[in-house]
Amino acid sequence: MKFIAKIMDVGTADPLAIMCAEDAILLGLKENDRVRIDAKKSSTAMLDTTRYMIKKRGLMYLSDSVMNKIEAKDGDEVDVVFAASPECIRTIRKKMDKEELTKEEISEVVKDILNGKLSRMEISAWLTALYINGMNIDEIAAFTQAMVDTGDRIEFDRTPVYDFHSMGGVPGNKITPIVVSIVASAGMMLPKTSSRAISSACGTSDFVETFCNVELDARTLKKIAEETGGVFAWGGSMNLAPVDDMVIKIEHPLGINPRAQMLASILSKKVAVGATHLVIDIPTGEGTKVKTLEDARLYARDFMDLGERLGIRIECAITYADQPVGSAIGPILEARECIRILEGNKHPESVIEKACDLAGMILEMGGINNGPERALEILNSGKALKKFREIVAAQGGNYDIKSDDLVPGKYMLEVSSVKSGYVHSINNKDLVSIAKAAGSPNDKGAGLMLLRKKGQRVEKGDILFQIYGESEPKVLRAKDLAIKYQPIVIEGMLIKKITASKVR
Amino acid sequence: MKFIAKIMDVGTADPLAIMCAEDAILLGLKENDRVRIDAKKSSTAMLDTTRYMIKKRGLMYLSDSVMNKIEAKDGDEVDVVFAASPECIRTIRKKMDKEELTKEEISEVVKDILNGKLSRMEISAWLTALYINGMNIDEIAAFTQAMVDTGDRIEFDRTPVYDFHSMGGVPGNKITPIVVSIVASAGMMLPKTSSRAISSACGTSDFVETFCNVELDARTLKKIAEETGGVFAWGGSMNLAPVDDMVIKIEHPLGINPRAQMLASILSKKVAVGATHLVIDIPTGEGTKVKTLEDARLYARDFMDLGERLGIRIECAITYADQPVGSAIGPILEARECIRILEGNKHPESVIEKACDLAGMILEMGGINNGPERALEILNSGKALKKFREIVAAQGGNYDIKSDDLVPGKYMLEVSSVKSGYVHSINNKDLVSIAKAAGSPNDKGAGLMLLRKKGQRVEKGDILFQIYGESEPKVLRAKDLAIKYQPIVIEGMLIKKITASKVR
Repeated sequence: MKFIAKIMDVGTADPLAIMCAEDAILLGLKENDRVRIDAKKSSTAMLDTTRYMIKKRGLMYLSDSVMNKIEAKDGDEVDVVFAASPECIRTIRKKMDKEELTKEEISEVVKDILNGKLSRMEISAWLTALYINGMNIDEIAAFTQAMVDTGDRIEFDRTPVYDFHSMGGVPGNKITPIVVSIVASAGMMLPKTSSRAISSACGTSDFVETFCNVELDARTLKKIAEETGGVFAWGGSMNLAPVDDMVIKIEHPLGINPRAQMLASILSKKVAVGATHLVIDIPTGEGTKVKTLEDARLYARDFMDLGERLGIRIECAITYADQPVGSAIGPILEARECIRILEGNKHPESVIEKACDLAGMILEMGGINNGPERALEILNSGKALKKFREIVAAQGGNYDIKSDDLVPGKYMLEVSSVKSGYVHSINNKDLVSIAKAAGSPNDKGAGLMLLRKKGQRVEKGDILFQIYGESEPKVLRAKDLAIKYQPIVIEGMLIKKITASKVR
Repeated sequence: MKFIAKIMDVGTADPLAIMCAEDAILLGLKENDRVRIDAKKSSTAMLDTTRYMIKKRGLMYLSDSVMNKIEAKDGDEVDVVFAASPECIRTIRKKMDKEELTKEEISEVVKDILNGKLSRMEISAWLTALYINGMNIDEIAAFTQAMVDTGDRIEFDRTPVYDFHSMGGVPGNKITPIVVSIVASAGMMLPKTSSRAISSACGTSDFVETFCNVELDARTLKKIAEETGGVFAWGGSMNLAPVDDMVIKIEHPLGINPRAQMLASILSKKVAVGATHLVIDIPTGEGTKVKTLEDARLYARDFMDLGERLGIRIECAITYADQPVGSAIGPILEARECIRILEGNKHPESVIEKACDLAGMILEMGGINNGPERALEILNSGKALKKFREIVAAQGGNYDIKSDDLVPGKYMLEVSSVKSGYVHSINNKDLVSIAKAAGSPNDKGAGLMLLRKKGQRVEKGDILFQIYGESEPKVLRAKDLAIKYQPIVIEGMLIKKITASKVR
């Protein structure tokens, strides 16, 4: 049947076709059917007949993605017929039925997501099926490869390509620039791409961009990495495994991150940048993605099995994550703490230790013995600082950057202890919520400074942490949350008292 | 933050809020986050920032459902803040984790679907989790009750309220008007609501509306049923368990129908019309929803267990469904076959037998012995025809209706057998596809007449079935499909030959 094509005023990335209910009945079409639309070229779209305002017969509103595909413009005549569902709906149902998928089937799902052939409803069903029924290692390897194949790749002229990745979930993890600078100082190449905060208070790219540009194109990233040995870029500005980014948006409202998707997501970005050697940091503890050592070991085994299938040498580090890494949370605060350590500051030790341990593992993969000690030497020698400045300058920052250049938000409130005792536990998730309430990561100067960590002695009235921000109401709101959550738990040394009657 | 509200030109039933990406960043909002929008009243909506055409800061496009809720009009100022996800997202995740849900949790999901608080993505995840992890009988009973509670109910002044339901999947099942007329002739009340075709070639309402009005409001339905004892209405014109209809649209592209949803869907409509006694017909065979006797028994047990919890006395009939019921498929053809039987025609026997068996079960629930024999007597006596005419007239049809008044489409093509032998099997799904290609159910005169059924002898060149239609190209297309599918399989009497070597 012929329709007059109209473009929606608020076009959408989803390929959507809207007609009035009467036309749909005439064509024997139902809500959410696929239709094929023919103009100069053809495209499929999903039918919506629920839009209230379409009362006029013979009109078909199309999203601009469809308009572009069929090369039509507003008012053109288009031909509309029923179209079958994409083949990969069968694959999604197969996964619902707990069957193993072939490489080809997985690749088709990923391609169809990329090309907008699947609606959000269908991608959501795919993710739910993955969450419940999972994938085996061969399926995940195929899934990873399919995500790589649907995006761009960076081909370095220099090899080997070292890389590392933190699974995340622990706040304050500002080690990336330190690790990169140490490894590059040793003459190895580590072209690190990082993410921005998804649900956390501050991603690596969120704090790195307070002192240099992180939105590099692939050509610039390659040039800087090959020349300096290091780079700390935002992965999102390149078209690496783009399906992953599309899928994350749909995971978000569901609050799920299926294991297969998570593993494929991490490794696809690494395969796309051509990593040959990879260290994966698995932060483990309550309030992170990986709760127990046993879980962490399962992840480590999966990563290494996947590495074998994908041709990357992978080693894993299980790291302590029951409290934040270091003291600072939030873009400027984390940047300052990170640069202070490069400048020679000996605190916080947890940051130095974690950075040198991970850098050390990478050095050892490159054939350097006693990696962690060697990493600490490089850090203490000032070589890492020099390398850091080189990279910062190459990424458009100031070579002479000093930690003192980084000034947090002008509003600051302190949260004190209401009793004396020892810090028994710190709730990562609550700290993240408080930092976000203060404005982090969008307000660069917002965040938290922890003055007490686990096991330390606290007297009533001692300051536990400071809340920084660029907006007074936000800092006040954050303090309210802090008082409500009490994220730092103080206890006497005696945690549990067993009475005589209970012992008997 | 303040925004100027704009109404989308093609509004949607989904509560959607669209702003430009820069505004979202400023507010710390991500794609698919929930936002609360305040004008005269408040509403939540899901944020979309991917719409290409929104470049202007400070504008917020809202779907008309949201505009109505907040009582704003185009150009009004609205206030927008982040809002938490609906609580029931947790319930959906619980079901993904295979946990049992409480009555309250299930009720909240159903209410949130009704009120548009869940996006299609989230409903899709819910359905996928139900499909994979299922529900136990207590959960399904709670689910059914929740679907009833979110819709209207019909309260009859006359009790008991008898009802029956065919699970469907078998084409040509035109028994409803016959069963209703027989039962009502016996002085019992059977207010039957039926559906239109979803994936089939012709639903009960599709053929009943060829001779009377099926779109009754609840008041009219009640009046007709109480006065005549019977009614054959379309369930969709009343607001009975409306969530079911919303969910079916989302099941459609996924091609799934989770068992829990199917059971709750059937029973919620029955509870909503106040049924006290219910017979459920479970058509069983290849090419229907229920493939094996074992499956059918499981359904029967579930229905009876649910009936106990919901306070309905339920009995189940497992019926033969390896081929269509009777000879006619398609609205006018089925209506004609149905009325011919009421007029006294003795064919097709399969329709008479099935109708009298089911009517008989209902009569026996009402205390009448030898139900099936009694049903056949009522049919043969002409009482059922008289009652049928009464109901038809009450539903706005012609009291003097005759089967010959129903004239199928003027285009007819015949499909003949290419060999001699016996009808070994009939593929229901293929017949449905052919009938739909011919135009059924929208073209009322379109459909099929089967001249041969299973086990019958066929000579090469004998006509197997006729294709009727109102449009020549559709009938031609249907015949092409018929030749491609060969839905009626002819074999010699010897189906499998076991050779001596294999027997040894």
